[in-house]
Amino acid sequence: MHFAKKLKKVLRETNSHLCIGLDTDVRKIPVFLKSYANPIYEFNNLIVEATKDLVSAYKLNIAFYERAEELGLAAIRGTLKSIPEDLITIADAKRGDIENTSELYAQEFFDELGFDSITIHPYMGSDSVRPFIRRKNKFVFLLALTSNYGSKDFQHLRINKKLLYEIVIEKALEWNEHKIGFVIGANYDRELKSITSKYPDVPILVPGIGAQKNSLERTVSGIQHNQFIINQSRSIIYTAPKAENESQFREIIRENAVKARDDINRILSSK
Amino acid sequence: MHFAKKLKKVLRETNSHLCIGLDTDVRKIPVFLKSYANPIYEFNNLIVEATKDLVSAYKLNIAFYERAEELGLAAIRGTLKSIPEDLITIADAKRGDIENTSELYAQEFFDELGFDSITIHPYMGSDSVRPFIRRKNKFVFLLALTSNYGSKDFQHLRINKKLLYEIVIEKALEWNEHKIGFVIGANYDRELKSITSKYPDVPILVPGIGAQKNSLERTVSGIQHNQFIINQSRSIIYTAPKAENESQFREIIRENAVKARDDINRILSSK
Repeated sequence: MHFAKKLKKVLRETNSHLCIGLDTDVRKIPVFLKSYANPIYEFNNLIVEATKDLVSAYKLNIAFYERAEELGLAAIRGTLKSIPEDLITIADAKRGDIENTSELYAQEFFDELGFDSITIHPYMGSDSVRPFIRRKNKFVFLLALTSNYGSKDFQHLRINKKLLYEIVIEKALEWNEHKIGFVIGANYDRELKSITSKYPDVPILVPGIGAQKNSLERTVSGIQHNQFIINQSRSIIYTAPKAENESQFREIIRENAVKARDDINRILSSK
Repeated sequence: MHFAKKLKKVLRETNSHLCIGLDTDVRKIPVFLKSYANPIYEFNNLIVEATKDLVSAYKLNIAFYERAEELGLAAIRGTLKSIPEDLITIADAKRGDIENTSELYAQEFFDELGFDSITIHPYMGSDSVRPFIRRKNKFVFLLALTSNYGSKDFQHLRINKKLLYEIVIEKALEWNEHKIGFVIGANYDRELKSITSKYPDVPILVPGIGAQKNSLERTVSGIQHNQFIINQSRSIIYTAPKAENESQFREIIRENAVKARDDINRILSSK
């Protein structure tokens, strides 16, 4: 199924805009999981079990898995198997290279591991993105406005009457208007508003809620279309550091995911 | 030793600006190497053995290793052990993420694997680069002007009287003038000229010679300082596809590396 169609379907069926970010740091995993052969996978698997009816997507921050080397790769494979097929999976890899090199990343993340979508840096332009959008049913979330402090350095530079991130969005949609969406940080609520009203069909991935302390209220209120997913990571997955067993862990994680989902829906329904 | 000092020393001692790009694709490895447990490592190791007195640096394009998964990671480790300590190693990873995530990439590529330097995307700004330059004796090659077609999309956008890549360079040198150099594609000979005369102490990594068919003459003639390395990959490492044994392979690779090194030096001495 085409990604945009899959996203619409999953948003409708789950009634959830929540994406859980599996930024799994082995040092932050509860003690009872550490004796497993692959604690990263076990941790992720429990989170997926506890939340798979509450979310539209899972995002794996690839840096955490690359840092864990062989164990990390095995954890990616296992985690993707745990995630129900109708949910969206995002490789938060922030890659981007000349075309023949991007092709290898596309092979690995899409063809081999089976992610639905990937985050990509725009700086190297069209051919650096092409291998990712050439593939059937796959999707790119291009970095437009990121949630970090450094986003102020270049993304807001003014070029004639436009800002760099606006040019990134315009140009990328010229390359392909069906297979590219954008990463817009939760702190950019005004920009989220204008982008989602200007491009009502373009999916948006919103990081920066939770540990990064932006206002969910302002962020969600700003969004003018329905094709968005809000990522929360540390504020859900690390809320049960002292859980002593699986059922305790699942219960706490589930409670926090329900709250995160409902908080978004409450703001949406009061708009 | 500080990276800039190490680079100066290696350029002086080897009298070579050549960097060999180990973009090792297992499908392009000569047949006689395919029966080894790790053909990628064996291939790299033979190339390093054949060329280590001819180059100042080796660059590993991480996409190729990530694509090869467990074998790729083992090949990185083994290859880095083969490379003499006084030569420069570059992780051509093109990463860049929010600070706590970039920190993990820095841990992996610098602290764990032991690369000297890494290529990084500028789009996410200062904090995305910080973990890489915070480390002692490590170095960042920030993407400024890349050698691909898509470099035209954003890198040349005009902001007041400057172009985006010029602003990237200026701003990055404000963050740290000792631990950041730049990637400038071989096709940008005029820009190479103005950047290396404006910043006589800032190291430059030049991709795009060889398979990417730019003129070595024009590229090298343009460069106005001595702190540069010219990467060549496919045009050296895949020149012995039909070699039947190690010594044949080493001989052909060495011959091509000698030629590549000498071509650069001949242009330099005729300037």
